[in-house]
This record gives sequence, C-alpha cells and structure tokens, in this order.
Amino acid sequence: MDLAIQQLDTFFNPRSVAVVGATRKINKAGHVIFKNFAENKRRGTFKGELFPVNPHEDYILGFQCYPFLTKIRGELELVVIVVPANIVPNIMEDAASKKAKNIVIISSGFGEIGKHELENKIVAIAKKAGMRVLGPNCLGVYDSRTGVDMLFLPETKILTTGDEVIATPRPMPGDIAIVTQSGAFGVAALDYLTGRQIGVSKFVSFGNKCDVNEAEMLYYLLHDDETKAILLYVEDIKSGRKFINVAKEVSKRKPIVALKAGRTEAGARAAASHTGAMAGSDKIYDAVFAQTGILRAKDMEEFFDAGKALAMQPPAEGKNVGIITDAGGPGIMAVDECEAKGLRIKRFSEKTIQKFEKLKENGQLPKFATNLNPVDITGSATSEMFEYVTKILFQDREIDGLIMLGLHHTPTLQEDYIDRIAEVASKYDKPIVACDIGETEMALYTRFRFDKLGIPAYSSPEDAARAMNALVNYGSYLKKSKWLEKYVQNFLKNKPKT
Amino acid sequence: MDLAIQQLDTFFNPRSVAVVGATRKINKAGHVIFKNFAENKRRGTFKGELFPVNPHEDYILGFQCYPFLTKIRGELELVVIVVPANIVPNIMEDAASKKAKNIVIISSGFGEIGKHELENKIVAIAKKAGMRVLGPNCLGVYDSRTGVDMLFLPETKILTTGDEVIATPRPMPGDIAIVTQSGAFGVAALDYLTGRQIGVSKFVSFGNKCDVNEAEMLYYLLHDDETKAILLYVEDIKSGRKFINVAKEVSKRKPIVALKAGRTEAGARAAASHTGAMAGSDKIYDAVFAQTGILRAKDMEEFFDAGKALAMQPPAEGKNVGIITDAGGPGIMAVDECEAKGLRIKRFSEKTIQKFEKLKENGQLPKFATNLNPVDITGSATSEMFEYVTKILFQDREIDGLIMLGLHHTPTLQEDYIDRIAEVASKYDKPIVACDIGETEMALYTRFRFDKLGIPAYSSPEDAARAMNALVNYGSYLKKSKWLEKYVQNFLKNKPKT
Repeated sequence: MDLAIQQLDTFFNPRSVAVVGATRKINKAGHVIFKNFAENKRRGTFKGELFPVNPHEDYILGFQCYPFLTKIRGELELVVIVVPANIVPNIMEDAASKKAKNIVIISSGFGEIGKHELENKIVAIAKKAGMRVLGPNCLGVYDSRTGVDMLFLPETKILTTGDEVIATPRPMPGDIAIVTQSGAFGVAALDYLTGRQIGVSKFVSFGNKCDVNEAEMLYYLLHDDETKAILLYVEDIKSGRKFINVAKEVSKRKPIVALKAGRTEAGARAAASHTGAMAGSDKIYDAVFAQTGILRAKDMEEFFDAGKALAMQPPAEGKNVGIITDAGGPGIMAVDECEAKGLRIKRFSEKTIQKFEKLKENGQLPKFATNLNPVDITGSATSEMFEYVTKILFQDREIDGLIMLGLHHTPTLQEDYIDRIAEVASKYDKPIVACDIGETEMALYTRFRFDKLGIPAYSSPEDAARAMNALVNYGSYLKKSKWLEKYVQNFLKNKPKT
Repeated sequence: MDLAIQQLDTFFNPRSVAVVGATRKINKAGHVIFKNFAENKRRGTFKGELFPVNPHEDYILGFQCYPFLTKIRGELELVVIVVPANIVPNIMEDAASKKAKNIVIISSGFGEIGKHELENKIVAIAKKAGMRVLGPNCLGVYDSRTGVDMLFLPETKILTTGDEVIATPRPMPGDIAIVTQSGAFGVAALDYLTGRQIGVSKFVSFGNKCDVNEAEMLYYLLHDDETKAILLYVEDIKSGRKFINVAKEVSKRKPIVALKAGRTEAGARAAASHTGAMAGSDKIYDAVFAQTGILRAKDMEEFFDAGKALAMQPPAEGKNVGIITDAGGPGIMAVDECEAKGLRIKRFSEKTIQKFEKLKENGQLPKFATNLNPVDITGSATSEMFEYVTKILFQDREIDGLIMLGLHHTPTLQEDYIDRIAEVASKYDKPIVACDIGETEMALYTRFRFDKLGIPAYSSPEDAARAMNALVNYGSYLKKSKWLEKYVQNFLKNKPKT
C-alpha cells in the first residue's frame, strides 16, 4: 500500500478513534455515533481504542470522557467531529497537535449554506498538519467488517404502538462499496441493500468533499480486497482530470456504476441548491463516464441492479443474449428491453436449434416449445427441461450471456430447477441473470435462492435485461481497453463460494 | 345492462357452471379449476350451481360427476372446458344443445400452434348457438368477489423441505381489473399485486381471443362498478377500429394502462412466435394509445405503479409538480425523472415562498430548508414540518400534483407524519404520491401505511415521478376530451374510505 492509500485506510480501520461531541443524550448524533463504536467494540468487531470527548460529561456508556482531544494520552489516529460548525476549527487545531491522521466532520453548516470561509479554514488547518478530512456535512464511514460505524441514524425506531422496528439497518458484509455525495440517499441505499440481502464492503459519504473526494475514494477502493464493485452517487465531480485518470484505472479492474443526479436542467438547478454543486452539462458527464468505463444508471433501481450483477457475474464478451423462459409474455418483455438497450436477440444457430429439436424428438422438451430466441419451454416446463436448455445455450459460442426467466407459477416446475441451473452455470464463464415475477413467498424464495447461488435475480424481465446490459457494457469497455481476459481470470479466481 | 354486457357478465357471475375435464387427479388443470369452484362454493363466495363433467369419474370432491354436459338437468350458463383440443368441438355441440350462454376454453392446441381450422370450427359452433367464447389457450377468469376462479395454477407449492409456500396467490378484492393476453404474465401480475397488497376486481385472460377480445372486455369493465382502473397486457390488438371506439369511451370514465409487448422488432418477432400475433408497427400502437387516452407503460413496474396511482388518486389538472423532501439527493432524482417525462418542476410562486419563509422565521421550518422546488426540509424534518409544507403546496393553485419524499431515516421524523399528510390530502382534490426508500421494516411499514390511507407509495423517487406522470397524462387526456370535471367529481364521490 502506498502512503496515500494507507492514510485513507485509517478512515475505515483506525487503531484509535475519538468522537468529539459524544454525549449521553439519546437521539443526538454524538450519542448514536459513539454508541455504534462502543457496541461494536464490545462485540469485538471494532478493535481500536475509543475515546469520547465532551467537556460536559464524565462517562459515556461506561467510557471515561475527555474534556478535550489534547487530554487523551497516547496515539490518536482518527477524530470524528459532531459539534456545531463554528467550533470545528478549534477541534481541528487540537487534532493537529495530537498528530491525528484523519478527520471526519459530520457537522453541517459550511459551504452548503454559503459558509465557504469557514470551510476554507478547516481545509487550511488540515493541510498544514497533513491531516485528511472527510466531509463536512456528511455521514462518514460504515465498514461492515471493522466495526467503524459513523451513521448517526438510529438502527431502529419505536412506533406509537410501542413496537421497535428496523429503521436504518446496517447491511451484512459483502462485495459492494457505496460512495455517495448524498448522505440521505446513502442510508436509503443501505436500507435497500439490507432488505434485498445484498452485502456491502464499505460505505462512505463525503458530503461537501472539502478534501477527500470521489477520485481518491475510487483509487482507495481499487486496492480494497473486500470490494468487487463500486456504486457511486454524485451530484457533481470535482477535479475532473484527476477523476478521469483514476476512474480509467479503477474500472479496468473493478466495475463502477454511477448514479449522477441532476441529469436534467431542473435537476441540476435542484442539485445546485442542495450542495452548491455546479454540475455542468449532463452531456459532459455522459462523455466522462463513457470514456472511463463507468456505467451510468438511469435511475435508482438500475443503479442497484447493475451493481449486484457486476459483483456476482463476469462481464459478457459480446452483446448476443439468449433468453430462456417458461412464460411467453415475459419473454417478449425481456426481448423488448434488450433490444431497446442495444443488445442483440438473434435467432440461434442451426446447430443449437438442432439440439433443441433433438430434445423435442426425445420427448425431453414440449413439442410446441419455440426455440428461435427466446427459447419458450412453455407452461409444461420441468426442472430437467430448464437444465437441458441452459446447458445448450451455455455451450453455444455465439451467445454471450443468458437471461433466465423461470417463472415459478407453472404447475410442474419444482424448486430444484434453481440448483440445476446454478450447477450448469458454475461450469462456464459466461454471465447469467435470472428473473421471477411476484412478491409472495415462492417468488421471494426463488430470487433469494438464485442470489445465494451466485446468479443475480430480478423481479421483472426488464430489470433482468438491464442487468445483462450492464454486464455487456462493462465487457465491451474491458475488451476495448484489453483488460477483459485478465479481469475474467481474476473474477473467476475470486468467485464467491456458494 | 344491455344484453351484450349481460352475456359477458356470465363469465364473472354465472348462476351455474360445468367444468368439463374435472378430475380427482391432483396437479391436473381440471382438478385445480374444479377444486377452486368447489372450495369457493363451500366458503359461500361462489353462489352458483356446480357440475363436474367427466365420463370416467363418479364423484369429485363430493360432487356427483356427469358423463356428458347433456346429462346435467336444469339450466347451464357457463361451461369451462379443460380437455384435449380435438374433442373440444364435441363438447361445444353439447353445450349448445344445453343452451349454455358462455364457454371458456382453457385448453391449448388451436391457432397458437397453427391449428386454425380447429379454432374456426369452435367459433362457428358458438356463433350458430349464440354462445360467447373466452380463449382458447387461456387462463379464463378470476373474480375476487363472486368466487369464480379458473386459474389452474395451484395457490401453493410444496418445497423439498416439506414446507408449503404461496406460489400463485389470489389477491384481495380491490379496484383494479387485469385484462391479459398472456396467461403467464397474468398470474405473475396477481402474485405481484398480492404481495404489494393491491386489490383486484376482476382478472381475465383471453389467450387466442377467438371470439371475446380486448375491446369487448374494456366495454364490459366500463360498466363494472367494482373496477376503477384497468391494466391491459396485449401483444396485438384485433379489430382496431372497434377497439379505438370502445377505448375512447372507456378511458373517459376509467383509466386504462397498457403494457404492449413486442415494442421492438425482435420483440414483435418473439410475439409472433408466441401467439401468432401480427403486431404491426409499434408506432401505430403509440398513436392508437394516444388517441384513445390509454396510458402506455414502458415496462412491468411502470404498468403496476401507474395502475395503483390511477386507482387511488384523482388525475392532475396540469403538469406543474411540487416536490417535498427531507432528503436532498432523492429530491433531485425525482426532479430529474419528472423533467425527463415532460412534467414541470417550476420555482414556487412568491406567495408560496413567502409562506415558507414565514415558517422559517417562526422556527417551524429549519433555517436552511430550501424552498424553491423541491422544498427540502432537510434531515431535521419533523412530522409537523411535513404537515405545514404539504398544506402550503396543496393550497398553491399553480401546483397540480405533489410528490412526497418522506424518507423515514431522519432521526426526528415520527411515523405520524404519514397520518398528518393523509389528513391534509383528504381535503383537496389534487393528486399526491409518496416515496420512501428502503426494503426493511420501517420502509415497508411506511409505504404500506400511505397505501392504506389512499396515498400510493413507491420505493424509488423515479417510480413516484412516473406514477405522477400517469396522473398528469390521464388528466391531460380528460381535459382535452372535456371529461375532467365529471371524472373528478365521480372519483371523489366514490373515493375509498380510509
């Protein structure tokens, strides 16, 4: 690890942390953040030293409280600041004299409300002391493995009924990193991913990004072994040239999906009044993303769907997609969306069609199954039929990726079709995504099982098509930059065990 | 009710039904369908007479079995046929001699596999006898109130663990009718709507539509008091002129949302091999939908989202949308999607801005809340603040509809904000849709509560924007055809009690 990365790593894995503004008053950000660290320390996930700092309290949750940072004895690596904006510079000076490496400023009240001078002041202090700053006006860091958790949004809420319910969940450890300019959207993303049982490696919200910005975070995550795919929410991008250079490097080895808000004129205006972002023309962002291999999602759902696909499946080597279905209508819906996105649903080769015909002759496929593309094995589908057909399309060198629409409703289809398909898929390095439609037990179970077996599953044919599109686009970028082979080798080597 | 409608009504509410092909063999379509009727009869929801017909069985589920239709004594209104295609004509002749009104042919093996002659034969028999035919190659009818249930897909499946899980659920009674050419997509839709707790009035799958087609169904549903909004899935449309005339009439009084599959060239090709649909150019469909006020959904999710919005909220009188949020990023995402769809997010009037400023002065809104549009009341949002702001925007005559992005994660926001917003909304006839992001308890609860209180809630800002777009487009059609006032009056009169 080079020194710059080492220093950034302290945000995620500090040997010692002080929370300035820690308090016993519940619902206060300073309480929630300190409590997160304290609980994770007791659980053994957070292994660093922990110091609450607050001149008005003696003990917080059993930890001795320090009136000032300078009263802490021994080394201090990371300072999390949760006090009013105007006293932040003083805290920063204290941190500098303690030789802290990094600062996270959760507090708002800086550039985003026009207080640029105050923001410049803290940047100057940090620069002089060689400290790196995350924020201000941010949610900081959540690391699913080290127990660093600066999210001041309480994990649960109490309803008027007295029931305690999950409100801002922390997702399980996983492969996807979230880098976000909007804290609110960031926690919403955690809520979404937790509910969908998608794991997260690291979460970082950089708010006003007065110092550490998206380019540096991408570079850091390139070297993070836990992260396989990066979800990036931005409203603007600072230091564009540097961003382009870094993103180009990163996306050769890790896919980046971006949700760039403010894509319309009114949206850009709203972004400007949100974070003061001077977003520039949206076309420029399109060009930057295309040039750097960043996949741009058109909305929230595509953002998550693409991230999941890229974390779980290798990219596609071309844009010919084969669709397998037991439901004609949804098959057409998938074709439509594939075509609309520029993927190709071409007629299968004669060789492949002959294989299907043979299956029909042997009574292993329904006589009236259509086999041009999609293969529609009809409502008489069985698990075996899905297995046969999947094998044939994986063997077809003209097909670059598979969309599996195994709607569970057909009477003869048994749950083991999921395992059979996953077993076949595990022998090839061609991507496959799945879809089952429905929001009750069997549909949820089906998608969950596919996900667990490493095949990303979606709830609509169009979502599945868009996920495949991400795999195709990423493959196309890698091919162009001659990194495809290397990436796929590496991906398969590190493929999650299922 | 005119005679034509009365006859169609027999599909949904027959005084007597025979199931030809009923059997005791589980997993057979003839068993599942007969059992649905038998169970609903015992439960008291199906009130008609019920006759199993099968020459090889004596009793089925306690009902005496008839060898032929002609052996049934007394009147017979509806015949459901679940026997191999080649003997269907004979059954039809028997039905004709029993003076049955209507026939549903579940069986496949007709036009969809090239057997046009056989299909023509059954049409001729029906015509001669004055019977109406639904199908063949269809799932028939599900009526949530009369207990008519021809879905041969079993409600539950047994997993290898021995667990029984919901597989093809029947949704609760509700306002939305589903008319579908694809049976598979139809049941998937039922699964989706059940899971999202959206009620259904009637479900009809017409397969090859050899006789009764989409135009007649729309006309029938126009006169169905239980139906408020119609979801129409089609791959092609027969008798276009009639369809246009009927759809124009219907959509003045009930919104129709269409998902027309085969919108791309490859999709149309797939549709042709699915149902033999000769779809014609997609542009023609766009024109037909525009002319008739049918709202075309671009994908499955928009299809359901729009249907839900139209069933629950009045249309918008114009395209100026006001957005309220406690989360900057998601606010921008909503703006982006609104703009992309052609809605207007204009700066609020000075009068409205003054009202916000006054709230700020009084300390009733955070000092740094932005109030141009969106109103961003920031992460310090409370229930009261949401209430104040909602009231102001409902009062603003320049705003035609509201998008409420009440992300529940902010620490000070309590669940009662949902009730407060619903209370305000109930006093105005302007549409409002809501969004909360997340897939764990509080998010699911929030959306569920909004739905229950009549405010359709969505899981992403873009989904909410697209739902509002449907309300705006429908309002614009009604305005153009001078039915807006009448529709809104009628809508408010029949507004569901919450």
